[in-house]
Amino acid sequence: MTAKAVVLLSGGLDSATTLLIARESGFELHAISFDYGQRHAVELDCARSIATAAGAREHQIVKIAFPAAGASALTDPSIPVPRHALHREPIPVTYVPARNTIFLAYAVSWGEAISAFDIFIGANALDYSGYPDCRPDFLEAFEKTVNLGTRAGAEGARFRIHAPLLRMTKGEIVRRAAELGLDFASTSSCYDPGPEGPCGSCDSCLLRARGFEEAGLVDPKRSET
Amino acid sequence: MTAKAVVLLSGGLDSATTLLIARESGFELHAISFDYGQRHAVELDCARSIATAAGAREHQIVKIAFPAAGASALTDPSIPVPRHALHREPIPVTYVPARNTIFLAYAVSWGEAISAFDIFIGANALDYSGYPDCRPDFLEAFEKTVNLGTRAGAEGARFRIHAPLLRMTKGEIVRRAAELGLDFASTSSCYDPGPEGPCGSCDSCLLRARGFEEAGLVDPKRSET
Repeated sequence: MTAKAVVLLSGGLDSATTLLIARESGFELHAISFDYGQRHAVELDCARSIATAAGAREHQIVKIAFPAAGASALTDPSIPVPRHALHREPIPVTYVPARNTIFLAYAVSWGEAISAFDIFIGANALDYSGYPDCRPDFLEAFEKTVNLGTRAGAEGARFRIHAPLLRMTKGEIVRRAAELGLDFASTSSCYDPGPEGPCGSCDSCLLRARGFEEAGLVDPKRSET
Repeated sequence: MTAKAVVLLSGGLDSATTLLIARESGFELHAISFDYGQRHAVELDCARSIATAAGAREHQIVKIAFPAAGASALTDPSIPVPRHALHREPIPVTYVPARNTIFLAYAVSWGEAISAFDIFIGANALDYSGYPDCRPDFLEAFEKTVNLGTRAGAEGARFRIHAPLLRMTKGEIVRRAAELGLDFASTSSCYDPGPEGPCGSCDSCLLRARGFEEAGLVDPKRSET
């Protein structure tokens, strides 16, 4: 029987690449996305296309309400998304409190119910926005926590949190995605896309552009703008 | 300035007692409850009354959808709640996968946004149903995880997960609640209450009855039936 993996799929480049890595590793794919009132809800349409294209067995979109939506530029339209300012502060205003803790907790909850003990997340600790919930020590501590706090863990199963992009540069991620045949046009990375596509100036757009540049490839999304 | 606490408030006896303990410790109370399609939704009405009576500054009810509602007797009406069978299995079918991990993650997310680093949960590891996410080692690991995975933690704040009932017997909890002036009639512990009140035979009713018996007190909810 093929082992199952739950893959966090935002619809961005990193999570799409992670999904294809999980597939290449032989897992049956169970993708999970979150509708949390993010500015970039177009990501969810991308997530649907990516999951279908990857042949995911299931794709669940969970609607969640962050208890403090006003705490982040990603969930509060009145807070401007920083422009042209990569890594300006240690942790930017696009940080959503405890987001990956919540997302991973949902993934584990689903995983436990369907006996999928391999959880994949596209966290990256090298070329990233400085979010603390993308760091290796957080992911290790979370893995330990859920192995203690679940029935499956108590009964001998072992959850593993896989973050295959953790130590890759953005250029390496883009190259890996290209090798795996990712349709880049189906992904959306922008924090604040307009009707014409990505803004080109938020942290996430700047990181994506750096990735394509390093990889020596052209981003089909960029050429649209 | 009074320190703030986020208190998980289900509407049951244990969480209500925990709320009053947090108040007695001098915290400004920010209560959080979850509407997750539980059978015992009457709990949420109780939670509202309890929060009001305790003078909570805020009470937030977060609607969440467990990714696998069919995995537990508490969220799937087709799975019967066990009767008259306290501790029959190591972990009973009322276990909801990763529930406290999800609940605590929301509490921390809210806490971070309002600078409330003290999180209270009514977990009990002595007279309980055997849920792994009520055990001390899980709570310790979770605390460590969120201190690593939040901006507040990265910037020097320290989240603390308080579980003041952790090593108390049910009798001790009932006595403590009585000392703190809890209106027992405002709490609901039953997993599957009917129109006439608690069933009297589920794990949670049996534990509550044991608590009142040990404390030598009469449960006003019980005397209704």
